[in-house]
Amino acid sequence: MPGDVKGRVAFQGERGAFSYKAALKLLGNNIRDLPCASFQDVFDAVNGEKAAYAVIPIENTLHGSIHENYDHLLEYGFRISGETKVRIAHHLIVRPGVRFRDVRRAFSHPVALNQCRLFFQKHSHIEAVSFYDTAGSVKMITEREEPNAAAIASEAAAEIFGGTILRRNIEDNSRNFTRFFLLTKQAKTLPSSSGAWKTSIVFSTKNVAGALFKAMACFALRDLNLSKIESRPLRNKPWEYLFYVDVLGRSDDIIVQNALGHLGEMTEFLRVLGSYRPTP
Amino acid sequence: MPGDVKGRVAFQGERGAFSYKAALKLLGNNIRDLPCASFQDVFDAVNGEKAAYAVIPIENTLHGSIHENYDHLLEYGFRISGETKVRIAHHLIVRPGVRFRDVRRAFSHPVALNQCRLFFQKHSHIEAVSFYDTAGSVKMITEREEPNAAAIASEAAAEIFGGTILRRNIEDNSRNFTRFFLLTKQAKTLPSSSGAWKTSIVFSTKNVAGALFKAMACFALRDLNLSKIESRPLRNKPWEYLFYVDVLGRSDDIIVQNALGHLGEMTEFLRVLGSYRPTP
Repeated sequence: MPGDVKGRVAFQGERGAFSYKAALKLLGNNIRDLPCASFQDVFDAVNGEKAAYAVIPIENTLHGSIHENYDHLLEYGFRISGETKVRIAHHLIVRPGVRFRDVRRAFSHPVALNQCRLFFQKHSHIEAVSFYDTAGSVKMITEREEPNAAAIASEAAAEIFGGTILRRNIEDNSRNFTRFFLLTKQAKTLPSSSGAWKTSIVFSTKNVAGALFKAMACFALRDLNLSKIESRPLRNKPWEYLFYVDVLGRSDDIIVQNALGHLGEMTEFLRVLGSYRPTP
Repeated sequence: MPGDVKGRVAFQGERGAFSYKAALKLLGNNIRDLPCASFQDVFDAVNGEKAAYAVIPIENTLHGSIHENYDHLLEYGFRISGETKVRIAHHLIVRPGVRFRDVRRAFSHPVALNQCRLFFQKHSHIEAVSFYDTAGSVKMITEREEPNAAAIASEAAAEIFGGTILRRNIEDNSRNFTRFFLLTKQAKTLPSSSGAWKTSIVFSTKNVAGALFKAMACFALRDLNLSKIESRPLRNKPWEYLFYVDVLGRSDDIIVQNALGHLGEMTEFLRVLGSYRPTP
């Protein structure tokens, strides 16, 4: 059904990007995709109802949080309805026929290039060139006739755009995973499935001594575990912060509801971003 | 004394960069400066004893923490011995004689360009072009003969390199401050001055429930206030974190020492990064 919005999923990059892989894990292999140039475009697509879902990276085990997406989450008010993790493996990909000794420039997303620093140190005749997307760089080098160009991207990107992998796993550190969120515009009733649920919240504390400690006590006193805490500056209050916290539990669980009620007593601002069951 | 290392201060960018302004505030107007191309070069300069001090940005009120410098702090083990904050104001600067209507490209550091998005939206005939430094972009456009180029940088950069300010305060948000650290290779005896001292620490908790809450209790139970908490991923342990915390107090204060002793009981790793009195 071309043109049908229902079920369409927006993500940053081209097919074969790591966000695309996350979308397949989260929604299955029959997704209708909407590749976007930027994270802003992904959020705009869901907001303008060109897509029903967004899949966005939120955190990488080497790079840290993707702050731009935390900021967009707050601004757009979408619900987090799923989470998954993707192992990041980078390969050097060329047009069929290009030999390793001919490669002079390797295109990729700046974060991917930065994760292959040892490769560029070892092969100093290859220049790292920034591009807007990993998979998009494969698309570009296979479409153009440049004889000296390579791309750094996933195996899926090589398959989709007909590239040849010349060197596998050129990333510096193999413990490289990215965590993705599945977002929807409207909140949905949580399915009554069991398993390890998570609830993501954001709050700002009153500017008093021990405020964050007291906020965390709302969870600790109820034996609720936190899997993540992240601070972001408040845009119009220099040196004050928003806190993004992931709690293990469902938002409709009575203990979590009590903890959130307690937290509301001692915060200036509190929003539940969503409850979700991680997809392995 | 040319070539004398004693007292020389390394910073990223050219004279007139915001780091240079922070260095003047921290060390006075008679500094001998060592401009560096990257943060890595700044840390290497102090490590290789080409400079006695480093001045680095650590946090911006709009952009958030500068994670690369948190990572370098941990790796190099330098001591934080001072802190100051600089108001960030961006101006559009050209070679004398260039008129606003002639400007087609504006060069600056990507973070500065990103902080002037409304300016570029309003003046869509001007293209934003990334450069390694704000002040360095003024140096470049005043040295070259390009008739359509401008730079975005500080007033000091315009003065130092003989540029003309065409538009003042083109930043989107005026509540834009950057916090800088003064670093030295070796720890020094703290001067016995009074005032509001801060101590910066970094630790990782054991991977058990409520570990961060218990770590924060070491301070809260002693009425010690925290002014900042920041998490960073541990490179070789996916989904575990380091925490950077700023405590109000001196590291040789008995209450702070007791809190740090208590914290040491329940952390896997703990390091004091330095105690310092903020320079207004």
